[in-house]
Amino acid sequence: MIDFKIKQVSQDLRDSILNAINQKTKPVGSLGKLEDIALQIGLIQGSINPELIKPSIVVFAGDHGVAAEGVSAYPAEVTPQMVLNFVSGGAAINVFTKQHGIDLHVVDAGVNYTFESDEVIDCKVGFGTKSYLYEQAMTKIELNECFAYGIKVADRIIDSGSNIIGFGEMGIGNTSSAALIMSEVCFLPLQECVGKGTGLDSEGLNRKLEALRDAKKTHPNLVTPEDILCAFSGFEIAQMTAAMLRTADRGAVILVDGFISTSAFLLAAQIDPNIIDYAIFSHCSDESGHGKMLDYLQVKPVLDLQLRLGEGTGCALAYPIIESAVRFLNEMASFESADVSEAI
Amino acid sequence: MIDFKIKQVSQDLRDSILNAINQKTKPVGSLGKLEDIALQIGLIQGSINPELIKPSIVVFAGDHGVAAEGVSAYPAEVTPQMVLNFVSGGAAINVFTKQHGIDLHVVDAGVNYTFESDEVIDCKVGFGTKSYLYEQAMTKIELNECFAYGIKVADRIIDSGSNIIGFGEMGIGNTSSAALIMSEVCFLPLQECVGKGTGLDSEGLNRKLEALRDAKKTHPNLVTPEDILCAFSGFEIAQMTAAMLRTADRGAVILVDGFISTSAFLLAAQIDPNIIDYAIFSHCSDESGHGKMLDYLQVKPVLDLQLRLGEGTGCALAYPIIESAVRFLNEMASFESADVSEAI
Repeated sequence: MIDFKIKQVSQDLRDSILNAINQKTKPVGSLGKLEDIALQIGLIQGSINPELIKPSIVVFAGDHGVAAEGVSAYPAEVTPQMVLNFVSGGAAINVFTKQHGIDLHVVDAGVNYTFESDEVIDCKVGFGTKSYLYEQAMTKIELNECFAYGIKVADRIIDSGSNIIGFGEMGIGNTSSAALIMSEVCFLPLQECVGKGTGLDSEGLNRKLEALRDAKKTHPNLVTPEDILCAFSGFEIAQMTAAMLRTADRGAVILVDGFISTSAFLLAAQIDPNIIDYAIFSHCSDESGHGKMLDYLQVKPVLDLQLRLGEGTGCALAYPIIESAVRFLNEMASFESADVSEAI
Repeated sequence: MIDFKIKQVSQDLRDSILNAINQKTKPVGSLGKLEDIALQIGLIQGSINPELIKPSIVVFAGDHGVAAEGVSAYPAEVTPQMVLNFVSGGAAINVFTKQHGIDLHVVDAGVNYTFESDEVIDCKVGFGTKSYLYEQAMTKIELNECFAYGIKVADRIIDSGSNIIGFGEMGIGNTSSAALIMSEVCFLPLQECVGKGTGLDSEGLNRKLEALRDAKKTHPNLVTPEDILCAFSGFEIAQMTAAMLRTADRGAVILVDGFISTSAFLLAAQIDPNIIDYAIFSHCSDESGHGKMLDYLQVKPVLDLQLRLGEGTGCALAYPIIESAVRFLNEMASFESADVSEAI
């Protein structure tokens, strides 16, 4: 696997940025999380006047062998159907990216369908993973291919001028992968990681939990992130992991979406812990394990809207708040410039 | 006091709107709070295709006699200074309203300063309220004047074509008024209502709490909302109360901001409980009592960003999420139109 050497973000400007924030015409600290975000982006960019350029969201799509085991409320053909919906502009992520002027990139990481549209970026590693109930989801070779593609996608978006990328996904069955990854990385029992996904009833949830318990038995002794990825990941999750790492490596801001996007981030952070400096967590999803993933990473999300949709929708909805953070730092008057008295 | 007869929102379209939401290409319920907001606005407007027109935020400003008692971290002259900052575009609310194309209206409800700018709407009832430590903050006549002005301001904004108004404020000392109002309306001890406002230290907080305990002793036996308003309100809070009532009366959407804005809403809801159907609560503020106000009203805020700034900033930051709710309802494809399979 390609080696990443992400630079820790320099703290040199911390005092200058905090000072600029505190000189704005508002009580100290009164913009709450926006102040944290402004500081973080200032540090990432090494600037007291950071800017967000060509905000982008990339949606990695892939199919999962395990979907045949009845772990999802939706049939597997919904993966390609939704990719086509992204291309024709009818999905939630289309609506929200259009609203905020965010560029949307759709990647076929391994959907069980042959797309003919130029608007789907072809990174196909296969027509879906194998079912991890019986074998590894993907081979080491396929994983390496996923990493090469993920890096290429991040490079392509960053080379187009973007300095902030949100990471979303589409893949029927992929909350199962994410739950298994979470269980391995966070050392938590599956019970705490498995949720209803797109909307399983309690019977479906039990079936999912049983299937994933079997999957864990099929793959004991997973040690490295690569082991976990080969055993349980989807092509879309593996590509996302690599693309996140590359994004941080190139100094751009990572917006993490929900449960599946955060599972990719968990693995990325195992591969290179310095990635954390570059990541903003858009929201806490309604999928039950997500809050615990965020706790494990010791991070606070921007939004809590009980979303459980994926597609990068949380990134798109959080984006205007992130933009507000950068804007207040750049555009607000200071006590001195506005001739406003400071605290007594 | 003028009588309000706000119509309860008709539930006639509830099933149709819910059906439209559930037919969108997403798992049922997966857009969380956005679905609740879409339904609410659809019901308010009586339409399956609601729209937000000319979003507006109005900031009512007023000075408080009690500010002389050391209840705020900032000197009273900051009220007019910040109003001038709003006019020259340097405050946080300017940055966020500009970002989202929201019209900003600034009202002098009773600041201790004479503004010469046409951009400040003149609704001056006086040069600040009296200190409620010794007497009523305002007379019944002044309260009636506040109500007449508040109604006029709401009418002016709605007549200009707006159908959604956010309510913010500026007034050094006004978290003290809000805490007293909260204590009276919610029947809670002051201890649970008083917070650090713009940033008091623990000594300042104790001083504030003591002062407000004295104020309550000065004004026992307050019964009606009018009694509470005359005793403890600011001119800006009283005008906001009336403007919120008028906004609902005219069928427009109310965006409530933080602690002070919600105190005005508490009174408005006492005057006419039907107002609740028209209100969206932008955020939960970091001011300690605000969460309890929202609990009292049994409402869930859109955002939780640890803001404690006022000015309507929470309304402005929540606005894009509210817009997203309306947009997904209008713009997303349905399962049928996008040829996507539904749940098994």
